[in-house]
Amino acid sequence: MASTSEDTITLADYIFARLHQLGIRSVFGVPGDYNLRLLDFVEPAGLHWVGNCNELNSAYAADAYARIHGTSALISTFGVGELSAVNGIAGAYAEKAPIISIVGTPARATQEARTSVHHTFADGDFTRFAAMHVHVTVAQANLLDPRTAPGQFDVTVQQALIHSRPVYIQIPADMVDVKVSSTGLKSDISLPPTSHGDNELRVGRRILELINSAKKPMIFVDGESRCLDILDEINQLVKTTGWPVWTSPFGKGLVDEHLESFQGIYNGDLGSESAKLYFESADLALVFGPHFSSTNTALFSTIPKQAVSVSFSERHVKIGHEITRDVSNKKLVAELLQQLDSSKISKPEGPSKPDRAQPSVESSGMLTQRDFYRVINPMLKPGDIVMGETGTASHGSRDLVLPSGSYYFTAVTWLSIGYMLPAALGAALAQRDSEKWRLRPGTANASEDRVVLFIGDGSLQMTVQEISTMIREKLNIVIVVINNDGYTIERVIHGRKQTYNDIASWRYLQALNMFGATDEEVATNTLSAKSWGELKEVLKSDTLSSGKGVRMLEVFMEREDASGFLLKLLNNQKARESAKI
Amino acid sequence: MASTSEDTITLADYIFARLHQLGIRSVFGVPGDYNLRLLDFVEPAGLHWVGNCNELNSAYAADAYARIHGTSALISTFGVGELSAVNGIAGAYAEKAPIISIVGTPARATQEARTSVHHTFADGDFTRFAAMHVHVTVAQANLLDPRTAPGQFDVTVQQALIHSRPVYIQIPADMVDVKVSSTGLKSDISLPPTSHGDNELRVGRRILELINSAKKPMIFVDGESRCLDILDEINQLVKTTGWPVWTSPFGKGLVDEHLESFQGIYNGDLGSESAKLYFESADLALVFGPHFSSTNTALFSTIPKQAVSVSFSERHVKIGHEITRDVSNKKLVAELLQQLDSSKISKPEGPSKPDRAQPSVESSGMLTQRDFYRVINPMLKPGDIVMGETGTASHGSRDLVLPSGSYYFTAVTWLSIGYMLPAALGAALAQRDSEKWRLRPGTANASEDRVVLFIGDGSLQMTVQEISTMIREKLNIVIVVINNDGYTIERVIHGRKQTYNDIASWRYLQALNMFGATDEEVATNTLSAKSWGELKEVLKSDTLSSGKGVRMLEVFMEREDASGFLLKLLNNQKARESAKI
Repeated sequence: MASTSEDTITLADYIFARLHQLGIRSVFGVPGDYNLRLLDFVEPAGLHWVGNCNELNSAYAADAYARIHGTSALISTFGVGELSAVNGIAGAYAEKAPIISIVGTPARATQEARTSVHHTFADGDFTRFAAMHVHVTVAQANLLDPRTAPGQFDVTVQQALIHSRPVYIQIPADMVDVKVSSTGLKSDISLPPTSHGDNELRVGRRILELINSAKKPMIFVDGESRCLDILDEINQLVKTTGWPVWTSPFGKGLVDEHLESFQGIYNGDLGSESAKLYFESADLALVFGPHFSSTNTALFSTIPKQAVSVSFSERHVKIGHEITRDVSNKKLVAELLQQLDSSKISKPEGPSKPDRAQPSVESSGMLTQRDFYRVINPMLKPGDIVMGETGTASHGSRDLVLPSGSYYFTAVTWLSIGYMLPAALGAALAQRDSEKWRLRPGTANASEDRVVLFIGDGSLQMTVQEISTMIREKLNIVIVVINNDGYTIERVIHGRKQTYNDIASWRYLQALNMFGATDEEVATNTLSAKSWGELKEVLKSDTLSSGKGVRMLEVFMEREDASGFLLKLLNNQKARESAKI
Repeated sequence: MASTSEDTITLADYIFARLHQLGIRSVFGVPGDYNLRLLDFVEPAGLHWVGNCNELNSAYAADAYARIHGTSALISTFGVGELSAVNGIAGAYAEKAPIISIVGTPARATQEARTSVHHTFADGDFTRFAAMHVHVTVAQANLLDPRTAPGQFDVTVQQALIHSRPVYIQIPADMVDVKVSSTGLKSDISLPPTSHGDNELRVGRRILELINSAKKPMIFVDGESRCLDILDEINQLVKTTGWPVWTSPFGKGLVDEHLESFQGIYNGDLGSESAKLYFESADLALVFGPHFSSTNTALFSTIPKQAVSVSFSERHVKIGHEITRDVSNKKLVAELLQQLDSSKISKPEGPSKPDRAQPSVESSGMLTQRDFYRVINPMLKPGDIVMGETGTASHGSRDLVLPSGSYYFTAVTWLSIGYMLPAALGAALAQRDSEKWRLRPGTANASEDRVVLFIGDGSLQMTVQEISTMIREKLNIVIVVINNDGYTIERVIHGRKQTYNDIASWRYLQALNMFGATDEEVATNTLSAKSWGELKEVLKSDTLSSGKGVRMLEVFMEREDASGFLLKLLNNQKARESAKI
């Protein structure tokens, strides 16, 4: 039976209603003539259009929004727009951020006639950019037919939600206004149960036995835990067991750092001897969200031993070397929490607590990578989103002790410099928008929303213009720029004195002025520090603690300065490489 | 017989020696740890490393360098770098710029072991980014083996040179220092003759007959003529025949605009009646370098009639509808010039000369899109490279009358906004570097080198940071920023009042200060104008006429102002679209 007219809606309305249902409130992108008609429907659907300065920046912002909120939307135009964004999409694939990437494409008639229009190679081929996106997205759809378009959209988005990875959806310009069935909108996009059997019970019983018999157990939280929707359960498990818990760099911020048994990032050879002794001799490791890239594992040296591991990941649960697929992690961990009797499990003496002492520094001394993050640490507040850009800022910010209720992220595998500044925009918008975020403990008070970004000068130069979008959106973002005159992380890796690691000298604090801050903001919101004394003065200022809007703090460090940890890590890498491991 | 040790050289030295042989002197890109060792060899080879702020900017710059010099080189890093650049590579494919895109990739051992390293998806797949580049480059090579690497490099570059399109070359980190045979370097990369037969003679005889019998002949120069290495010959042909010559937007700047029979860009219905009458009734059209995209042909309305056309393109020569392949355009046109007897050909009365009058404007009147380019025209000088960014600046700058010996370019098909600012950097470096450029008539005096860029505010925001590279390279570039508060070209197309066509308000002239110009440059090199009177004062200033370094002129126009031509063109497009043509 054909649908009656009451059941229809334009395809654009369908899509934006779905995004709204998913809790998305801000949509990123750049206008272009193949998406202009589509953009007419954004604001009427209750969504806020965030026009970014360019498409790569929009993808980076959408990635961070998805990491905070759980999903995000990006709209670009055919060819020029989508290809500018593609590195951001790839990063979202690598580190698991479910961006719904929507591309406005030429009208169906234009494509069918193979017309030589702009944003093509004038050869009648309209398929190549979609073919390129197959490599960097987990599902794709081309909405060419009103009969199938809503369903295609929904199943594609479902893939994004299940796999926490970007998807790619093309909408020809003449499909925007086409009427489609609205029936699907009556219910949310549902994720079917992971299994219809009793996998969780069976596996849960085996894991519970291991938990009850372990003498030297530990918990390891890696970054893909974020995508499993079990962060509360993991924190509960740590509290209930009291077992030593480590994270990877990617997992930092997913466990409350003020829990009694919190150990910090596990650093293997490069960390404390007592941590290493315990970690290496553990007889059970509950491993959540493993993401074992070389750069997230200190060159594969910080991975819990497989033989004693029970690991929970999107694709399967693994007990030792044995894999069980089609398991709901959420059901499984809930089951474990329910069955777990804390009086029956061992309460081993954990390693000594990690050192959190403030370094002692001379007021007149220059800032150093080694001590900077500890000295600036007290400025952080509950509810902050703290971000450390790839490079020395990422390594340094791993030393921060995060207040409860704050959140942290850094890139660990894709490591595309330039990412973190637009990502700070995306994170701040998600912080403002997301009901899910608002429900986190410690983040209840919206007036306290803030993002604190640590970023090197070379990275900042890549995507600097997005500061203007932060200003326009009136977001509370503190940008701490480490001015050390170039790509210091590259200098440390190779070419310490080589000119190719130099960058142009900028007057960074002019950014607020140039990018359109008010005269008052320009006057009050820039700060700088070269010495510890200056930094301590800055930390007392209201600008950082209770100021509003975009603030910039420029700190100066030596161009070849890097933390001892980073140097040791890279030395290990060189040794491995010359041994051809 | 095995080579002796004297015949070997490192692969990196081989590659950079080849680039040097090709006349390349500046190499664009961004360092990344998979290309750092490779970069050690750049400067020792006599090449200048231009570190760009990001990879998309480096690709845009390399594109323009290739358009001016004939080829260019770009070095990026695996994954993050190459994907950031890919939109620029695609644009070079669409509009024919032979970039040699070199990507530093992980060592062969890492790839073979499928190690989960950074800049990958941690899944052991190292092939997907190359697979993506297959869609946007004309040839690809992965230099995995010292025995074949030099030859692979050479044949790949040969494809770039023949097709004037980008190529993609991967170099694993451990191949950089590997010794290879240097024998190939003893001779340049040669382009084999297009045909070994007498195609040129046979086709030439037939074309000469058409030339001698034509009563109402014309010449049409399109943008792909640039790639045929026959610009001198085309200009000679125009002089010898005295026949009316038009260009497309893409062809503008390839013919001396002060030749007696120069007609300008052919605008069909939207141009002069007398031009249209002649063009439409011509009985012979010599068409050079056709590039018939909708946006280069006023929606296919300005294409010479195929039945009377003889067209010269990279792939073939076409007489009417008959194609002959494997013809050297250079030999063919030389043959025609030699055989042509100007006393035997008709000398028709051409259309009336195009209007080049200066508009009369009131000093107090606000600047308008319609008249701005004519009023600023007198500032242009022989030897200038004049660039009009996509948008109103592209359409407006088509009205400029170019001094002899100057050069012009604008995007016509790829139309990726943001392109033209980094392109101005690339063009200015090619102008400084290129012997080929220096040999052009009117460009002999290096001290007069200058690039003049017309760019809208929305475009400028996309890639603004590359101004810092212009400053660092001490290039003479005049940036004319049209501040009209948003994406005016999009407003004209759709969404005149929609907020998605707004952009953030910047203080554009702060750019020199922020991006590191000297205090003196900051003081002297910024100018602005809102009225005709102010503009005329600015035009008298030494800053524009004889100043040095990067200069910025901000001009203000109404946010919805667009030239009448552009409005008519877009109206035609809408009419065609609603008719579903």
